[in-house]
Amino acid sequence: MTGEEMHALVERLYPICRSITGDGVRRTLEIVGERLPLTVTEVPTGTEVLDWTVPKEWNIRDAYIKDATGRRVVDFRASNLHVVGYSVPVSGTYPLEELRPRLHTLPEQPALVPYRTSYYAETWGFCLSQDVLDGLADGPYEVLVDSTLEDGALTLAEHVVPGELADEVVISCHVCHPSLANDNLAGVAVAVALAGRIAAAGRPRHTYRFLFMPGTIGAITWLALNRDRLRRIAHGLTLACAGDPGPLTYKRSRRGDAPIDRAVTHVLRDRPHRVLDFSPYGYDERQFCSPGFDLPFGGLTRTPYAGYPEYHTSGDDPGFVTPDAMEDTLDALWQVTRVLEGDRTYLNLSPYGEPQLGRRGLYGSLGGRSDTRQGQLAMLWVLNLSDGEHSLLDVATRSGLPFALVEEAALALRDAGLLKEHA
Amino acid sequence: MTGEEMHALVERLYPICRSITGDGVRRTLEIVGERLPLTVTEVPTGTEVLDWTVPKEWNIRDAYIKDATGRRVVDFRASNLHVVGYSVPVSGTYPLEELRPRLHTLPEQPALVPYRTSYYAETWGFCLSQDVLDGLADGPYEVLVDSTLEDGALTLAEHVVPGELADEVVISCHVCHPSLANDNLAGVAVAVALAGRIAAAGRPRHTYRFLFMPGTIGAITWLALNRDRLRRIAHGLTLACAGDPGPLTYKRSRRGDAPIDRAVTHVLRDRPHRVLDFSPYGYDERQFCSPGFDLPFGGLTRTPYAGYPEYHTSGDDPGFVTPDAMEDTLDALWQVTRVLEGDRTYLNLSPYGEPQLGRRGLYGSLGGRSDTRQGQLAMLWVLNLSDGEHSLLDVATRSGLPFALVEEAALALRDAGLLKEHA
Amino acid sequence: MTGEEMHALVERLYPICRSITGDGVRRTLEIVGERLPLTVTEVPTGTEVLDWTVPKEWNIRDAYIKDATGRRVVDFRASNLHVVGYSVPVSGTYPLEELRPRLHTLPEQPALVPYRTSYYAETWGFCLSQDVLDGLADGPYEVLVDSTLEDGALTLAEHVVPGELADEVVISCHVCHPSLANDNLAGVAVAVALAGRIAAAGRPRHTYRFLFMPGTIGAITWLALNRDRLRRIAHGLTLACAGDPGPLTYKRSRRGDAPIDRAVTHVLRDRPHRVLDFSPYGYDERQFCSPGFDLPFGGLTRTPYAGYPEYHTSGDDPGFVTPDAMEDTLDALWQVTRVLEGDRTYLNLSPYGEPQLGRRGLYGSLGGRSDTRQGQLAMLWVLNLSDGEHSLLDVATRSGLPFALVEEAALALRDAGLLKEHA
Repeated sequence: MTGEEMHALVERLYPICRSITGDGVRRTLEIVGERLPLTVTEVPTGTEVLDWTVPKEWNIRDAYIKDATGRRVVDFRASNLHVVGYSVPVSGTYPLEELRPRLHTLPEQPALVPYRTSYYAETWGFCLSQDVLDGLADGPYEVLVDSTLEDGALTLAEHVVPGELADEVVISCHVCHPSLANDNLAGVAVAVALAGRIAAAGRPRHTYRFLFMPGTIGAITWLALNRDRLRRIAHGLTLACAGDPGPLTYKRSRRGDAPIDRAVTHVLRDRPHRVLDFSPYGYDERQFCSPGFDLPFGGLTRTPYAGYPEYHTSGDDPGFVTPDAMEDTLDALWQVTRVLEGDRTYLNLSPYGEPQLGRRGLYGSLGGRSDTRQGQLAMLWVLNLSDGEHSLLDVATRSGLPFALVEEAALALRDAGLLKEHA
Repeated sequence: MTGEEMHALVERLYPICRSITGDGVRRTLEIVGERLPLTVTEVPTGTEVLDWTVPKEWNIRDAYIKDATGRRVVDFRASNLHVVGYSVPVSGTYPLEELRPRLHTLPEQPALVPYRTSYYAETWGFCLSQDVLDGLADGPYEVLVDSTLEDGALTLAEHVVPGELADEVVISCHVCHPSLANDNLAGVAVAVALAGRIAAAGRPRHTYRFLFMPGTIGAITWLALNRDRLRRIAHGLTLACAGDPGPLTYKRSRRGDAPIDRAVTHVLRDRPHRVLDFSPYGYDERQFCSPGFDLPFGGLTRTPYAGYPEYHTSGDDPGFVTPDAMEDTLDALWQVTRVLEGDRTYLNLSPYGEPQLGRRGLYGSLGGRSDTRQGQLAMLWVLNLSDGEHSLLDVATRSGLPFALVEEAALALRDAGLLKEHA
Repeated sequence: MTGEEMHALVERLYPICRSITGDGVRRTLEIVGERLPLTVTEVPTGTEVLDWTVPKEWNIRDAYIKDATGRRVVDFRASNLHVVGYSVPVSGTYPLEELRPRLHTLPEQPALVPYRTSYYAETWGFCLSQDVLDGLADGPYEVLVDSTLEDGALTLAEHVVPGELADEVVISCHVCHPSLANDNLAGVAVAVALAGRIAAAGRPRHTYRFLFMPGTIGAITWLALNRDRLRRIAHGLTLACAGDPGPLTYKRSRRGDAPIDRAVTHVLRDRPHRVLDFSPYGYDERQFCSPGFDLPFGGLTRTPYAGYPEYHTSGDDPGFVTPDAMEDTLDALWQVTRVLEGDRTYLNLSPYGEPQLGRRGLYGSLGGRSDTRQGQLAMLWVLNLSDGEHSLLDVATRSGLPFALVEEAALALRDAGLLKEHA
């Protein structure tokens, strides 16, 4: 998928009213499923999952606040952000003063509509811009929330690219936000593109698992249902905010120096980027990295969680994310998978002195030249560090050479009989 | 005690002629004892203590150099700094030239009188300003040192605030300097205030032991007499130079990363401060951190040992120390004790995923807001790191949150049944 | 040897045509042998050494390119750099176009002649300046290389200064470069001077072994012949580029924190210098630090390998190296040997509190002065860290004091019965 195709997918998914449950998530997964076969799991309301319980399912058809003339001054049909997520049904007429505690605005960003939810406390409310609120007369106003909050299910979806190994690389995206583009339709679009690219490259070594789930409760539910399989997870990433114009940002796993941490920071080394230490806040790395699981999950974003003014507002629309940014995120992720796929530990079979590379056609035969060719340098580094203690990623990190070059050197040395893979 | 009260104590103690033995130390301890009950130990001259021997006791009544007119040109009554500490008795008449080798001045600070002692080589001498020396005629001069150097005792004092645990926090102040305010009457005054504040706060967890002893030989004597009890010392600090206007300075223990090191550096993090690595010079941390004992003692000062021009001169008078500086030192020490008292290691009893804080009333129920509340963040950090490997101080250090907030979060989580103290 | 004497040795060795084998190396070793008795080993062509085979021996008498008038436009007699090292014999007449692929120049340094070799692929060629090449007419040219490439031997030489211990310090210099002064006649001259200085100072503690060998194949051959003795090597250095005006540069051993690394970086601490991490490129540390051997060899140069424009060109002539620079390299190496000789681990026999230094005449008896004398400080550091875990070099490193002062303090403490050497 090109950046333009990813952007088109963001635009197509944008109008759907998603939440942590309900038909918006299902419709989103249907559209994703047009590109990737998904295994969808419906987990019934009331199921106990770790410390939590799967909540009632929420669906909504319409909602508005109408003024005396019948004009919708706040209209769900114009933007699903206008209703507080999980609002219970209501129908009635209220003066403005009575409505005020249920009206959420952003006084410091008066033109923008905030995003608000109330999953676990039954209530209702509306979100609107401060500018609109300031223009409202005293009322009365006719109010409708045509929603249902009933027993139903929570919807999870997975796409797997099977590999040679049972060891898994897991990429997790949250799909619970309504009309917010960077958070997280861009992440969904990049994940879809990455899955396609991996599959197109032939059978990978690792198995790749893509998770599309509601944030927090979705991750908790998936973890509860898959406890026996978690030991297979070799590397994991949560992917979010993948399309804004800021530089890539990596948040380390709780472990701090897991292979995924070293792989991502190696790939980001040559790009504008930031690296943050783990914190138990942000996206679903919070759940994957909870101390009982302590899985090797990092978080990849461009501008991180809550780090841009448009975050969780109507400003996070498809115009905020760019095809170029999504392509850059995709490319970095692709490079990370190349490192994970290629990283191996070799043993130098001729470790006493340097082996004579020239005799094997591995080395320029005309000595004395002062230009040190990078490929030869990569061979020397691989030979020197292949003592069973260092993987190719270690070699790339310590030498400062690109991983691909180090891998290429290792394969040439292996083919010449100078290396063997370390058990 | 307020800063003003601490300053008044410094002023009251200032005129007394202290040394490593003698009635000046006893009088000082009497005055301290008006505020804190002290256990005083007199250790006889000749007692062998570690590699040392308790010296003879020195007392002095008067000393002067009189010119031909009978005027005291150098007068012990004006300042006890004028006599080299431990000067043996002398009475005689000398020309200036003969006196010169016994006259100590500071040519580069010509208006100040230096502080000099000769504890272990029997001699006598006077200290005076270079300005006064320059004005002296050739003499002859009448010289008197009316001192005694005889078998007696070395005086140590302790004040203990008993706690729930036998584990001790030890604060040690030297009391052997005559009229020098910052070094170390300010330290004595702050220690007195701290002891009172701890006692007033109710029974502490740790036992707090305050030591008022002569430098070097006092610490060596106390260590020799208490070898069987040293294993109880969990944390220790030497306290000196506690009242000058410079920023707080912490000198790490020999271990470098003892809990006391982490507690003090955490408290200082949000104040102007300096942290120095251990060196075997300075105050009695030299003895506590000698390799045979290697106790976890750091050193707290404002401007450190020998770091200010007034150090060991008549410029270190009560005008050099300020009530504000002593209050700031006291407050930092108090915060350190709060960390030592509150630091515990907990186990998260719900370590798989995050527990649902909202259900327990521990979390705001209206999600989606971008302001991350510090208290919630503290709860998430405590839950994430409470795996038995991290104490609350580790949580505060890694999260960058204040210790008090982290402790408060932990107590709320414990009360909600989500944490238990780790054995 | 003074800097001038070292420089004279460089000038005397400069005209000789050295290579990895042949009479040029033998003549060089004869001249070195005038100052140092050398043990010379001739290893026959065809001997298998590690992964390599000793090559045929190469000797050359003359070589030129003559124009139609009989003038030598490229002349081996003017500079031995003009012939590609190991060129096979040739005699014939060629137009310029046919010669061009065999003519090596430096287009970006048009006045300089490059240094090129082809040890393991039989070929021939000439090196010349771009300026000369640009002035050549179309030809034809008469070409002669009067060389032999035949079974013979590879020549290694060693000089040993026997010490009290079998433990060895090895200094290795390559002697395979023809007329290049900094790389490596300066290294040879400094090594000769160092060996003389060590011997003149009396029997050392370590045994010192100086190796004069061709690069790469020489080191590989020496390692192959001495595998049983390698365990004796306690510390090693390759020495090259020892005479240019740049600052000293130390390249760490593969281990990174071997005692030699700490000794050299300590000595360099107070001089302009650079420290580089290990890389498997450069001089024969590549062989000594190959993973099978992993010997504690660092590399000492001034401007490092390939780091100066004159590197491997005719610009690296005796005018490029200076007596002062060689003296500075010699002095630093000498200081390194002083650290290696003096470094010991002691046990403080009075580890509880400070021992009373004054009683033993080790300490100024007049206390209270604010000037901390370095020697006393050194004694306190030695006492504090002499717990069996820290050597004197550790003490010097941690205290920031010069090694010589720390050693002097330790000897005084030992003589006073306060330290004993740790087994």
